[in-house]
Amino acid sequence: MNFKMIGRILSAVTIIEAIFMLPAILFDLIDHETKSALAFAYTIAGMLLVAGLVAFLCRKAKVNFYASEGFACVGLSWIVISLFGCIPLLLSGTLSNFFDAFFEIVSGFTTTGATVIADVESCSRGILFWRSVSNWIGGMGMLVFMLAIVPGSMGRSGFTMHLLRAESPGPSVGKLAPRMRKTAITLYGIYIGLTVLNVLSLEMAGMSFFESLCAAMSTAGTGGFGVLNDSFTSYSSAIQIITTVFMMLFGVNFSIYYLILLRRFSNIFQDLELRIYLLVYTFATVFITMNLRLNHLFETIGDSLRHAAFQTASIMTTTGFATTDFDGWPAFSKMVLLLLMVCGACAGSTGGGIKFARIILFVKTLIRNIRQTLHPNKVQQVRINKVPVSEEVINNTNAYLVAYVIICVFSFLVVSLDGYSIETTISGVLACLNNIGPGLGLVGPTHTYALFSNLSKSVLSIDMLLGRLEIFPILVLISRSTWSRKA
Amino acid sequence: MNFKMIGRILSAVTIIEAIFMLPAILFDLIDHETKSALAFAYTIAGMLLVAGLVAFLCRKAKVNFYASEGFACVGLSWIVISLFGCIPLLLSGTLSNFFDAFFEIVSGFTTTGATVIADVESCSRGILFWRSVSNWIGGMGMLVFMLAIVPGSMGRSGFTMHLLRAESPGPSVGKLAPRMRKTAITLYGIYIGLTVLNVLSLEMAGMSFFESLCAAMSTAGTGGFGVLNDSFTSYSSAIQIITTVFMMLFGVNFSIYYLILLRRFSNIFQDLELRIYLLVYTFATVFITMNLRLNHLFETIGDSLRHAAFQTASIMTTTGFATTDFDGWPAFSKMVLLLLMVCGACAGSTGGGIKFARIILFVKTLIRNIRQTLHPNKVQQVRINKVPVSEEVINNTNAYLVAYVIICVFSFLVVSLDGYSIETTISGVLACLNNIGPGLGLVGPTHTYALFSNLSKSVLSIDMLLGRLEIFPILVLISRSTWSRKA
Repeated sequence: MNFKMIGRILSAVTIIEAIFMLPAILFDLIDHETKSALAFAYTIAGMLLVAGLVAFLCRKAKVNFYASEGFACVGLSWIVISLFGCIPLLLSGTLSNFFDAFFEIVSGFTTTGATVIADVESCSRGILFWRSVSNWIGGMGMLVFMLAIVPGSMGRSGFTMHLLRAESPGPSVGKLAPRMRKTAITLYGIYIGLTVLNVLSLEMAGMSFFESLCAAMSTAGTGGFGVLNDSFTSYSSAIQIITTVFMMLFGVNFSIYYLILLRRFSNIFQDLELRIYLLVYTFATVFITMNLRLNHLFETIGDSLRHAAFQTASIMTTTGFATTDFDGWPAFSKMVLLLLMVCGACAGSTGGGIKFARIILFVKTLIRNIRQTLHPNKVQQVRINKVPVSEEVINNTNAYLVAYVIICVFSFLVVSLDGYSIETTISGVLACLNNIGPGLGLVGPTHTYALFSNLSKSVLSIDMLLGRLEIFPILVLISRSTWSRKA
Repeated sequence: MNFKMIGRILSAVTIIEAIFMLPAILFDLIDHETKSALAFAYTIAGMLLVAGLVAFLCRKAKVNFYASEGFACVGLSWIVISLFGCIPLLLSGTLSNFFDAFFEIVSGFTTTGATVIADVESCSRGILFWRSVSNWIGGMGMLVFMLAIVPGSMGRSGFTMHLLRAESPGPSVGKLAPRMRKTAITLYGIYIGLTVLNVLSLEMAGMSFFESLCAAMSTAGTGGFGVLNDSFTSYSSAIQIITTVFMMLFGVNFSIYYLILLRRFSNIFQDLELRIYLLVYTFATVFITMNLRLNHLFETIGDSLRHAAFQTASIMTTTGFATTDFDGWPAFSKMVLLLLMVCGACAGSTGGGIKFARIILFVKTLIRNIRQTLHPNKVQQVRINKVPVSEEVINNTNAYLVAYVIICVFSFLVVSLDGYSIETTISGVLACLNNIGPGLGLVGPTHTYALFSNLSKSVLSIDMLLGRLEIFPILVLISRSTWSRKA
């Protein structure tokens, strides 16, 4: 292991995190929230001190880097930013239990949006801003951000590829530009552009600047932290519709936007994942609307459609906002949402879940394998968007699915020790592992995760990290071979 | 497609089924249950007529046979025996709805044991016998039985391998003897031997001959059809313990018994699947016992252990008997049972579910793939019991998992239209797909499946067939290429 290089990266990440905390102090000072402002100030000071010390100790790092070190580095970075990130929540008195604070901020960075705070309206604006920032930076990735802004040796060498691959969601990383740093800059450029557009749209619909900023950042990261206790229920229809559109936009693979910038429109509509994503969204929305109508849940078909469209987008993109208590919806609608929780959004988006790219790969591999069983003599290949998929990617995707199932099983068992219903337990684990936020039953949109024991909160926190980093970076951290001195 | 050969096999299977129905008439005549006796008599007459006609039309069949024809033949046979098998239930007046009767007998043949009859004690002994026989013959397989008893051209040619492979559970068929017919005879020899042992044990514990026979046949097939309304609740502890042991015995791969007959004891303890099976059983039983004790559900630790051991064996081997209403157990115990529902028993046993052999293969492949990702230059191979596993088997097993998940998703959606809770819907589908029987909630051990709509019952019937035949034989039936005239 190249410990010194990892140390340098961790210190860089910590400094960036500290910079993102700064505006929180500003909001708190405006509101005379001294305790909260001091909490951020102390945390930032401590972070800069530690980061400086580590950077000094690791100044003579070699630049060579292996794939396993890339994974380990990403896993460690996310744990470090979460540990630092939860300190303001504790110092400001927002939360008093470490497990609660860690859960809350991991939920932020992993863009889950599950909360243990029932009354978010009582939080200071600094804390609310920090929660939404964690959604925003977690969406595209802290290390991707670092790669985009840090020049020189770090941006040049081979490890950027390993880092980007380990932090970006989806079965394979989309290399937008030939150089990795260029890719990182492009991704963040598009991300910032769309976020600004979202803020402006919400302001035009009548939201205040602060609320627009927070809502847009949470939407962009497909996080789902809100600033009101009822999430999006009390906002106007216009705001709900704007948010529906932006949630869907942030669930799309960002390479699509790059293609738009390059004016290669024909490639866009050939993208299988995008077509499936839109198709599933349309079908799910229509079916849920019909189901809601037949059960007379809302007065008009327009209301049914608006809620169905919002909730489907929210769950499918793994954002987790709510315009209504969908836990009270009929069984079929709830089942559709539960299944969409697992699907997730597109690869290369800010959304969580298994991702449609993987699901397409599973189904295509299934069809290939059935054909192979029936006609053993013909060699068959899996193709996506007409490009053959390597057996390595197929094996990796299958491994991902198996690891995913094992994590589910383990989490179900531990969380069930708390004694809540099967629905609460299963949907809670799935909502965390897929970075959605609200589940069903006692973790439904009108409840919080505060009811769980510290043990369950720890497991769910790990699940959120496993979900956001797509298992391997965290798995590498607990593998013995990672920590042996040899390469 | 070799339609004539398939016709011959279907008629042979129908004749065998008719023979198995004969004793039902005897029991009904003893009890003066004329209506039920006539129902069986008419059905048998009709079956022999149809089978004779088909056999005559297909007398000039060629013996060449492809893998896909093997799958199609097995799939068709199971549908045919189910269609004939449900007629006595309708004619005798036990059930009046075709979907109910079809569900009931498919549940029998697939060894699920899910029932729509709330008051089984009101059924004639003929009907009760026929339900248990369906469990018994379904456990080891109708076609395996046919291969064992039908001599000549059918027992000789290459298609026996295809048929055996398509009907036997597990990722790869255990070839006990060099000749396939010998394998089929050996399997049924062991099966009959163990069943007789089970009948004698139960009789010694005080059960009547008829009840012992039915209970043993249902246990042997890991089916779970009982003759009392409360399943095994009112039987003595001795009977419950005997049944626990036999359920576990029938969940073991039958090649283990063959090794015992050959006195190759050292090979037995090296079998990884057997060790995992026993380990998981022990751990699950101990954990559930502790969980029950801590929640004070039973008076003594002995009672907790007895119920935990029985219920774990019943669910893990996918039998589905109950000594108590485990739907009222604490969340952790219910979660363990729900997960064991999916695991199932050993490959090559009469149990359903995914099978431990496949789970071992998933985990080993996962570890291999993680190693491959971290060290791309080393070629790694998956080994089970020190024997390398071919990539073909790995691909097939992964395809099975993906197909399994897709079937679950589809079934969850359709069944949720009935509007029951998530717990009822999910556990109901899993209990049918894994051939267990009782689920949780409204399909728990004190309820029946009668509450579902005809649509749901049809889907669940197909799920049971998919589960018992491990997906491919049914999938082949709906594939277009199967029905094209070319080979």
